[in-house]
Amino acid sequence: MKFIEKLKFDASGLIPAVVQDWKDGAVLMVAYMNREAVKKTLKTGKATFWSRSRQKFWIKGEESGNIQKLKEFSFDCDGDCILIKVEQVGGAACHTGYRSCFFRKAGKTGKLSTKGKRIFDPAKVYKKK
Amino acid sequence: MKFIEKLKFDASGLIPAVVQDWKDGAVLMVAYMNREAVKKTLKTGKATFWSRSRQKFWIKGEESGNIQKLKEFSFDCDGDCILIKVEQVGGAACHTGYRSCFFRKAGKTGKLSTKGKRIFDPAKVYKKK
Repeated sequence: MKFIEKLKFDASGLIPAVVQDWKDGAVLMVAYMNREAVKKTLKTGKATFWSRSRQKFWIKGEESGNIQKLKEFSFDCDGDCILIKVEQVGGAACHTGYRSCFFRKAGKTGKLSTKGKRIFDPAKVYKKK
Repeated sequence: MKFIEKLKFDASGLIPAVVQDWKDGAVLMVAYMNREAVKKTLKTGKATFWSRSRQKFWIKGEESGNIQKLKEFSFDCDGDCILIKVEQVGGAACHTGYRSCFFRKAGKTGKLSTKGKRIFDPAKVYKKK
């Protein structure tokens, strides 16, 4: 995959990846990929990231079942950001149960409000082992 | 703007901001804001970033005229990414003349192709001073 040479990974070997719903264009989340996660995502067709907090590969939905099926892989003019379009299995991408991680908005004065509603109950999806 | 305390800025004082067209949801670009750029964006209603390459505030479109009028400001569950919806004046966000900076896509085997077409000629928009 020669095109990977066009991507700029940061000092930690990571590049941000915006995840967008392939049908209505909703931005679901932003996570980070390393070189290997880029290859895994393209090869398996499942969005795969590098978890900065857990320091390991993270196949989105591996625990909740809400995987993201790859529909399109693109990257920006500078090569320092990725955009993937996905089919979000289960309808929700956020671990809080909201469809999108971007469920909080701020008004001009900084006043906060919530948009969207919870699609699942996190307590039921992420069972303690 | 108390909500800014909910945002996590990295070691350089920056947070990534995804810019999305408010009408059809196209992801136009990703850039970085610092604390002051967040305030400026909300206060002025014009998308304002911190340019990492030029190390200064960057009102998107200040040179080309293609400013981005703020329509919605949101941030994610972890507070480490911003998403703004904007009205893109001039129709194109990318300095290359494409509507979106994400105009290159890679297939499963890594094969590259271009999506979209150039809306403006960069040589005419960015005149040498």
